[in-house]
Amino acid sequence: MASIDPEVTAHVAELGDRARVASRRLALLSRADKDAALLAMADALEAAAPQVVEANAEDLDRGRATGLAEGLLDRLRLDEGRVRAVAGALRDIAGLPDPVGEVMRGSTLPNGLQIRQVRVPMGVVGMIYEARPNVTVDAAGLGLKSGNAVILRGGSAASSTNRALVAVLRETLDSQGIPADAVQLLEGGRDAVRALMTARGRVDVLIPRGGSDLIQTVVRESTVPVIETGVGNCHVYVDAAADLDKALAITLNSKVHRPSVCNAAESLLVHRAVAADFLPKALAALGGAGVRIHGDEQVRPFADAAGTAYEPATEEDWGREYLSLDLSARVVDSLDDALEHVRRYGTGHTEAIVTEDRAAARRWVAEVDAAAVMVNASTRFTDGGEFGFGAEIGISTQKLHARGPMALPELTTTKWVVEGDGQVRP
Amino acid sequence: MASIDPEVTAHVAELGDRARVASRRLALLSRADKDAALLAMADALEAAAPQVVEANAEDLDRGRATGLAEGLLDRLRLDEGRVRAVAGALRDIAGLPDPVGEVMRGSTLPNGLQIRQVRVPMGVVGMIYEARPNVTVDAAGLGLKSGNAVILRGGSAASSTNRALVAVLRETLDSQGIPADAVQLLEGGRDAVRALMTARGRVDVLIPRGGSDLIQTVVRESTVPVIETGVGNCHVYVDAAADLDKALAITLNSKVHRPSVCNAAESLLVHRAVAADFLPKALAALGGAGVRIHGDEQVRPFADAAGTAYEPATEEDWGREYLSLDLSARVVDSLDDALEHVRRYGTGHTEAIVTEDRAAARRWVAEVDAAAVMVNASTRFTDGGEFGFGAEIGISTQKLHARGPMALPELTTTKWVVEGDGQVRP
Repeated sequence: MASIDPEVTAHVAELGDRARVASRRLALLSRADKDAALLAMADALEAAAPQVVEANAEDLDRGRATGLAEGLLDRLRLDEGRVRAVAGALRDIAGLPDPVGEVMRGSTLPNGLQIRQVRVPMGVVGMIYEARPNVTVDAAGLGLKSGNAVILRGGSAASSTNRALVAVLRETLDSQGIPADAVQLLEGGRDAVRALMTARGRVDVLIPRGGSDLIQTVVRESTVPVIETGVGNCHVYVDAAADLDKALAITLNSKVHRPSVCNAAESLLVHRAVAADFLPKALAALGGAGVRIHGDEQVRPFADAAGTAYEPATEEDWGREYLSLDLSARVVDSLDDALEHVRRYGTGHTEAIVTEDRAAARRWVAEVDAAAVMVNASTRFTDGGEFGFGAEIGISTQKLHARGPMALPELTTTKWVVEGDGQVRP
Repeated sequence: MASIDPEVTAHVAELGDRARVASRRLALLSRADKDAALLAMADALEAAAPQVVEANAEDLDRGRATGLAEGLLDRLRLDEGRVRAVAGALRDIAGLPDPVGEVMRGSTLPNGLQIRQVRVPMGVVGMIYEARPNVTVDAAGLGLKSGNAVILRGGSAASSTNRALVAVLRETLDSQGIPADAVQLLEGGRDAVRALMTARGRVDVLIPRGGSDLIQTVVRESTVPVIETGVGNCHVYVDAAADLDKALAITLNSKVHRPSVCNAAESLLVHRAVAADFLPKALAALGGAGVRIHGDEQVRPFADAAGTAYEPATEEDWGREYLSLDLSARVVDSLDDALEHVRRYGTGHTEAIVTEDRAAARRWVAEVDAAAVMVNASTRFTDGGEFGFGAEIGISTQKLHARGPMALPELTTTKWVVEGDGQVRP
């Protein structure tokens, strides 16, 4: 690995030190102060909407000139309506309970020591993400509410927009008597990102959000603790004992409701016993929704009969997160085969079974190793909003610290407070 | 970084795959089955004590021949009494509640979906540690109880002992119908450790226990998520409003009760207002216990008067974890100066204040950023056993996942179980 430009390292260290200083103040803020600042940030964003949209237009122009795909341009785009939605998210965060100070557990020890484990902010949280500028505001808002300073590294495609958004947020913080360095934007090239990933001690946790390549790079190169998010090769398994109407609805919803997100289904497994009943209807419906099937040989005749786009699945297909209207499909001989397939190709995000058989459901729940296991429900439900968290900073697919949708509590750590009156160990 | 011998990588991958297969069975074991196996392991260890002690004698001979320090030889040594103590720890673990299956939270969503977050095993846990062979048995026992397969990498100085211990444990597991690969020993040189650190996907978490160098290497080189443990530059701050009798007892206990462990105090901060009252008594008592003082200029006259060994503290001293009868000592002008000193030199392990002033105690608890903050209690209390956990796999000094003493719950992750009757997202 090439070494990092020392000036860049020094710049990131300075951002980190400022964030640390700010974080000490943030950790002591009352909920009332944080909520007032969140509401003021929302108002200020709405008032600044014209400037934000203007900055966004620069990004869009540059994006078009460099040939950014239409899908990416759409994710990048902010109009005044979207700015209002982003501001609304800050108001929602103000309405959520403050995780800081929550007592998780505690006891009085036999020697009279009173111990309690209390939620406290992480300190400095780094976010590395891609095009969508709403992540900038969400991360700043969730960071503030959880008492953390954030260092934001958005995609270069959104740089003008992010600069405009962060300027508004920092001004508002300052006007509220809260250190503006609670929210900082990291600019610069790849070296800046690498300096952030190796700023151990200055940054307490890094959360990458985006494509698989981005996340794998962060995991590999970071010495700062990382929470891996979001790669989802999610399966729907239609069991021998499935209610086929539910199976059809769940398969369709999981695949086509929003194909570009991590909790969309990418692979369909169908028990041999119901394949002839289920696949004709399912493939017709999927085909009607524009889905292309990457199937095994047993799926082919049903796809042909239904007139659904089909190509033979390669070994690679079983492991792919398409994030598009593509779906791999396989007929399996048993629940065991389905479990084995998921073990081999799943990414530990969300795995759904459709079955009316209690024993099959219990085995699926017990044996599938994933952030979320679903029985008779769409994979699309793995989501902080759907789970009632009121917000989401990402969906963790690792096992350490947080697993599944992450919201405010997942941005905190704990501290043991031990109070005595002179106790020593005998 | 030099590349790893492919044969070593393949060997570690094979260990990892075996551990994964075993972990699937372990995750489904009942508490009764796990406890029966733990008790059988304890009995088997006691029965095999003569062979274990014989293997240990080989390690001790080799250690003496290679000039291992007497302290390390003592940590390495197992006699029949110590083997019984190690077996007793397994019986204690059998008596602890099973963390697996605990429901952390849950709700019924407006659409009727029932969601719950359930504790499940991590899967495969890697431990990298140094000389003490009891860690081998503790880690195997805590791993089994929490449903995890463990890959153990002990210090090479203890290799014969560890081999003997693991052989007994694996035979017993097998006789209990539990996969022997629940406990595996990783042998080989540095390449083997590096292969373990980069076995991401095969190993779910790595816990290094040992000196600062070992831990920093694991943190730097590992792509597997790591829980950093145990480096403790712990401070005792004697406030202006301290009860000086308590301060004396706490300072002495924190420093000399067991100087070689991470929760021993390494640095003493004394408020100027009480320095002239406190330091003469404290330095005399510390000196009487054999403590050498690395002090600032204001400490020197008191040390000289007390006849306590003194040398001027260097900048390096303030950051050192001596793990010996050495103590850095400084007079500070205020609580703020003490907080600033701890911020600068602390390692986030345990920080104690001695004070009768409620406001000072509240500030210390709120502003010190550490796994444990103590008011009027010895730093030695940061310990899984003392906290009533019944066991300890290490003390985390990082903020992600676990902070402070780690026991069984810290060896688990969670899984969201979502049960419905056909729900899809509208």
